[in-house]
Amino acid sequence: MDNIKELLAGEVAAVDKTIENDIAGLAAEIDPLLQEVLQYAVFNGGKRIRPLLVLLASRFCGKDDHKLPMLAAAFEYLHVATLLHDDVIDHADKRRGKPSVNVQYGLTPAILTGDFLLARSMTIVGEFTGQDGLNAFCKATRAMVDGEFVQLRNSEDYELSVERYFEAIQGKTAQLISAACEVGAVYGGADLKTRESFAVYGSNLGAAFQIIDDLLDYLGDAGKTGKAIGNDLVEGKVTLPLIYALQNAADEDRKVLLDLLDNETRRAESFDQVVQLVEKNNGFSQSLEKAQQLIADAVAHIESLHCRDQHAKKILLGLAQYILVRKK
Amino acid sequence: MDNIKELLAGEVAAVDKTIENDIAGLAAEIDPLLQEVLQYAVFNGGKRIRPLLVLLASRFCGKDDHKLPMLAAAFEYLHVATLLHDDVIDHADKRRGKPSVNVQYGLTPAILTGDFLLARSMTIVGEFTGQDGLNAFCKATRAMVDGEFVQLRNSEDYELSVERYFEAIQGKTAQLISAACEVGAVYGGADLKTRESFAVYGSNLGAAFQIIDDLLDYLGDAGKTGKAIGNDLVEGKVTLPLIYALQNAADEDRKVLLDLLDNETRRAESFDQVVQLVEKNNGFSQSLEKAQQLIADAVAHIESLHCRDQHAKKILLGLAQYILVRKK
Repeated sequence: MDNIKELLAGEVAAVDKTIENDIAGLAAEIDPLLQEVLQYAVFNGGKRIRPLLVLLASRFCGKDDHKLPMLAAAFEYLHVATLLHDDVIDHADKRRGKPSVNVQYGLTPAILTGDFLLARSMTIVGEFTGQDGLNAFCKATRAMVDGEFVQLRNSEDYELSVERYFEAIQGKTAQLISAACEVGAVYGGADLKTRESFAVYGSNLGAAFQIIDDLLDYLGDAGKTGKAIGNDLVEGKVTLPLIYALQNAADEDRKVLLDLLDNETRRAESFDQVVQLVEKNNGFSQSLEKAQQLIADAVAHIESLHCRDQHAKKILLGLAQYILVRKK
Repeated sequence: MDNIKELLAGEVAAVDKTIENDIAGLAAEIDPLLQEVLQYAVFNGGKRIRPLLVLLASRFCGKDDHKLPMLAAAFEYLHVATLLHDDVIDHADKRRGKPSVNVQYGLTPAILTGDFLLARSMTIVGEFTGQDGLNAFCKATRAMVDGEFVQLRNSEDYELSVERYFEAIQGKTAQLISAACEVGAVYGGADLKTRESFAVYGSNLGAAFQIIDDLLDYLGDAGKTGKAIGNDLVEGKVTLPLIYALQNAADEDRKVLLDLLDNETRRAESFDQVVQLVEKNNGFSQSLEKAQQLIADAVAHIESLHCRDQHAKKILLGLAQYILVRKK
């Protein structure tokens, strides 16, 4: 499946080059420190999944021009903006193995650079796709914020339902990925049905992506993910594997689990035991199954569409599968 | 001059009503806590200067309809968004005499509600005024962020030039007020010359507004302003009265001043003495003079324009004068 990365290397390079030129071009207008922070925050080993989806959706619909990489970059900008603010909120020290911006430069640059990227991304989307694109984009931004509030409410709520979990990840991850696909289709001149299909494809992809992320927090390799394993659990974030395990467990296991989860120190110390109990009660397998269903549904939504670029379609289908097997 | 407030009471009420309905209308879409924070942050005794300028500029140019108050509200949203983030950055406890959102609700709601308002305001401006309005709005947002970076750089720099001070306040305050006037004119269907004149009027008004704000930090009445006096000085913010005083002072006074400013404790303890020295070296009078010049120039820019609403014009001219005499 590393195959998919090779297939996309050229596109990633094009997006990176566009971003590099854009930031360099701002030099005359912005403070040197802001420019430095932008550079640091945006070139940080990101997978560029959102911009790639913009590119591919537009090409799928038959449009590819020199402006498309900039529209794609806007989605990376918004994504990085939310990461900057998330890291402030979570007091995160690291981001992809490097010191986070709030640690490297401080709280003020982290918040302000996020605001800058938010405004810049909206300008670009507005300019390139008009009100239709801007609406999808702003809806995603609002949903992200709302999703964080829902997550705040969900924290340490071990009665959390699957529905509330999905509500939170819709906002946190899925809506922006959905918007990337939809705006790409808008730019590509797609009709309404095609736009809606791309929105569903993206939403499902994003939800599956988040489920895998949540699985990796339990089962991942910190050396690969760049994040400490068990972080979410210790912080009281209730994610899908735990929800399923608590639902499936018999009274005894359930009681033991809730006991282990009781407070932060306890959670940190008993991580391995929690993993075993989640495993035993099918929390991991059921989560993976759910992610697989979402991906199957995503694929079904674009497979039957009229397509003007078979190569783009092949990659979009491949990306969907890649999400299920990624290790970082 | 309280006259101007009476003249505007109806408009302020219309903007407030629009915001109230807008937030209430979001209930179905957003988390209850987000809604509560929005309510708390937006209804906090703000003067609504930015939305009023949108309303008045549009009417001046001949357009007034039921959508105008919502466009006006967008400028209050962006303004509140920046206040929320500023208060996090400055670790401010209070905002207009009430606990700041970061104190009342915490860091996370303060950052996220700011992001929400940023996105919402851009959607509204994009929808109502298209790319022209959105460009002016986003330029202002970016300039605000950049201005904060410039201010970060200026902190404790007692060699700060008048030019660098103005560069910082352009971004911090003047650009958004300028955008409010310009976008109002755009909505009102103004020609390019009129739009540019309104942009200059707003920019000058905003700069004068900030100078008076900086004067009030030295000379204001905390009971009226809702802010502790001497805050900026203690924090190492170098504002116009101090810059002029340091420029005007003979070597001896200058040396004494720089000595008093040396560190935060020192600055806090010697505030009264600093005020005396700034006064003696014409820092306050020269700052006020500069604000007066800016207002005179602002007035000149719109006085000669073709006007379709004499009442709006009268208030715009009155507002300019009001800024010079405001005590809070």
